[in-house]
Amino acid sequence: MKPIVLSSIRKQNLRKVLDLLTLAPAMTRQELAEASGLSQMTVTNLVELLKKQGVLHQTVVPRDENSRHPQGRRARAISLSGDQKTWLIVDISSRQFSMTLIGFDVEILMEIHDNQQGEYLQRLESFLREGGIRMLNALSDRKLLGVAIITPGPYEISSDTVNNQRLPQLNQVRIKELFRRCLGHYEYYVDEDVKFAVRSFSDPVVLNQCEVLYYLYIGEGVGGAAVHRGNMLRGLNATAGDAGRLIDRQGNIYENRLNTEAFLHLLDIPVSLPPEELQETLRRVATQQPLQYASALELMASVTAEMLHSVLWILDPTHIVIDCVYAQPDGKSFVQMVKKHLAKLFQGEPRILPHLFPCPPGVSSVLRGAVRVLQSAWLDRILM
Amino acid sequence: MKPIVLSSIRKQNLRKVLDLLTLAPAMTRQELAEASGLSQMTVTNLVELLKKQGVLHQTVVPRDENSRHPQGRRARAISLSGDQKTWLIVDISSRQFSMTLIGFDVEILMEIHDNQQGEYLQRLESFLREGGIRMLNALSDRKLLGVAIITPGPYEISSDTVNNQRLPQLNQVRIKELFRRCLGHYEYYVDEDVKFAVRSFSDPVVLNQCEVLYYLYIGEGVGGAAVHRGNMLRGLNATAGDAGRLIDRQGNIYENRLNTEAFLHLLDIPVSLPPEELQETLRRVATQQPLQYASALELMASVTAEMLHSVLWILDPTHIVIDCVYAQPDGKSFVQMVKKHLAKLFQGEPRILPHLFPCPPGVSSVLRGAVRVLQSAWLDRILM
Repeated sequence: MKPIVLSSIRKQNLRKVLDLLTLAPAMTRQELAEASGLSQMTVTNLVELLKKQGVLHQTVVPRDENSRHPQGRRARAISLSGDQKTWLIVDISSRQFSMTLIGFDVEILMEIHDNQQGEYLQRLESFLREGGIRMLNALSDRKLLGVAIITPGPYEISSDTVNNQRLPQLNQVRIKELFRRCLGHYEYYVDEDVKFAVRSFSDPVVLNQCEVLYYLYIGEGVGGAAVHRGNMLRGLNATAGDAGRLIDRQGNIYENRLNTEAFLHLLDIPVSLPPEELQETLRRVATQQPLQYASALELMASVTAEMLHSVLWILDPTHIVIDCVYAQPDGKSFVQMVKKHLAKLFQGEPRILPHLFPCPPGVSSVLRGAVRVLQSAWLDRILM
Repeated sequence: MKPIVLSSIRKQNLRKVLDLLTLAPAMTRQELAEASGLSQMTVTNLVELLKKQGVLHQTVVPRDENSRHPQGRRARAISLSGDQKTWLIVDISSRQFSMTLIGFDVEILMEIHDNQQGEYLQRLESFLREGGIRMLNALSDRKLLGVAIITPGPYEISSDTVNNQRLPQLNQVRIKELFRRCLGHYEYYVDEDVKFAVRSFSDPVVLNQCEVLYYLYIGEGVGGAAVHRGNMLRGLNATAGDAGRLIDRQGNIYENRLNTEAFLHLLDIPVSLPPEELQETLRRVATQQPLQYASALELMASVTAEMLHSVLWILDPTHIVIDCVYAQPDGKSFVQMVKKHLAKLFQGEPRILPHLFPCPPGVSSVLRGAVRVLQSAWLDRILM
């Protein structure tokens, strides 16, 4: 048992170093040791290991008058490098596919969105073939370490299929087989969108204060995922956390009342907008008809709180991240509204309400989570 | 980090040995090694450690003609001993208090049930004082290793109070303070009934096949708790798994529709029966009016399935243990009924339903779970 334990500690330590370097532009070994709580010796060993893998840059730090060791060896600033190694993330979780090539340093190198018309599966195949060619060009000399495939529902390894309600055509497809045929033979990691997303929040900082983190996604579909003490809650059917499927008092599932289509319906906006236009339209409505927009959001916040009521009794999460596509023009306000409605629902109960926060802006949680999964699989390989 | 990891492995190994000895009447070192997968050397060391603590019996195994080493050293059968060390479990989770003194070998030495009338808190105090005297007599030369206090709701360490709806008088009481005053200065471990109970199922056998085990209790109250990969899901307010507080389509909480009072109401039985009489009455009704009893149980099973619907989407448990007080005359049938109603609810969904089973007969899950918690705390102390 000992070797397993030691390599898992080593993996945790490497993960810490990678997390720190992902957050900071560059750090010296000493800074890494201080921030991670690891010894300088451990940090040096880990940095050497990563250097050998060709994923680090080192630059000499200009000598500083205030430095503690002005006469000593020059410190080197270490940063992640995207020059040699990359990740690819293919998102087929919504009707519009996308493909993102990301350097090891989590900088986006290339993004392709599907803008074609036509039958769903044909569209997917031609998107993967054309995207594959463009990706190979963008890669140039870099090596692809792994590919994450983001699906709209849980993935079943043994049958190589997904199971979802929104895009039933996809349930017939053998996922990895399709990808190998159209894109080539790579290391593929398939998982549901929310399962990737929740992992972007499982960093040590959050976990230290957090028994259960719940991630709620509201968009074309409504779903969620939970991390319990650093382990994802997956469940028997890999549907754990899927609040969108809960039944409301009218006997409907919450997904149908809360998804983007339902929201656009409240604002009399045609529902078949591509993602780019959707965001633009929402921003316009939020600016030009602020009252209508706010009152539609308020209604959705009250339904969200009602749905979260069951989540609060069954998971009792410490933190809830709300990633609502149509609230993006004003994500913070939406979270405030949900909070207010939750407080009303739990009025009179001696209960602490979870810390609610909107999804951080920038690179999406799904992409960040997918990079973490790919990193983790890569760490397993290099530590073998 | 290494010493912590090693002592936690040692604790796991000791736990395995204790679990095996709790299940089997007696085992040789070789049998322990085979059953646990540990080396003979490790088993020998652990057995020595437990022997020093005075919690093991050893008897020479009669020489067996079929033994592999008929000429070798005589094997010794090792069993847990309740001669020197004991646990005490005080259950204040329902209106009727009880106190159980259990030997280290998990044999019950003494049981006291409260049969008094009067004001709740006065009754509790006098029960603890009188029970304390009887316990000291029953202890004779044995040492008490720890006391578990079972409460009807989550316990808040910092304020030393519990929070529950059924027995609001208890929410005003400083629990450990009261026990120290009435019973004496021991090591006290306080937790909610379902939280103790779920731990009795967290043995290695179950956990190997089980991502999430959910324990559902239906009795004076309705609640539950979950174990996720060997870790209890506790949550921000320690209410994780409390399905009884979910809201049904009429806006009522399920607890009110499912508790013993509601069941007895269906059968026109007066509701204020003490626990012993309750079980007797239920057995009589089940035998004399089997149709009425079965149809009342069937109704409760359909409500239970409806309540579990949310649990299946949010926790997606692998196993569900149903501990229903009023279904005890026929626990298996009740579980079958719930299963049937769940299958109906999930008809048309490509979904695997969890493995449902009734609570095993014999020593209650709450008591077995409490012993596990006390054992665990004791292991921490002796491994320090």
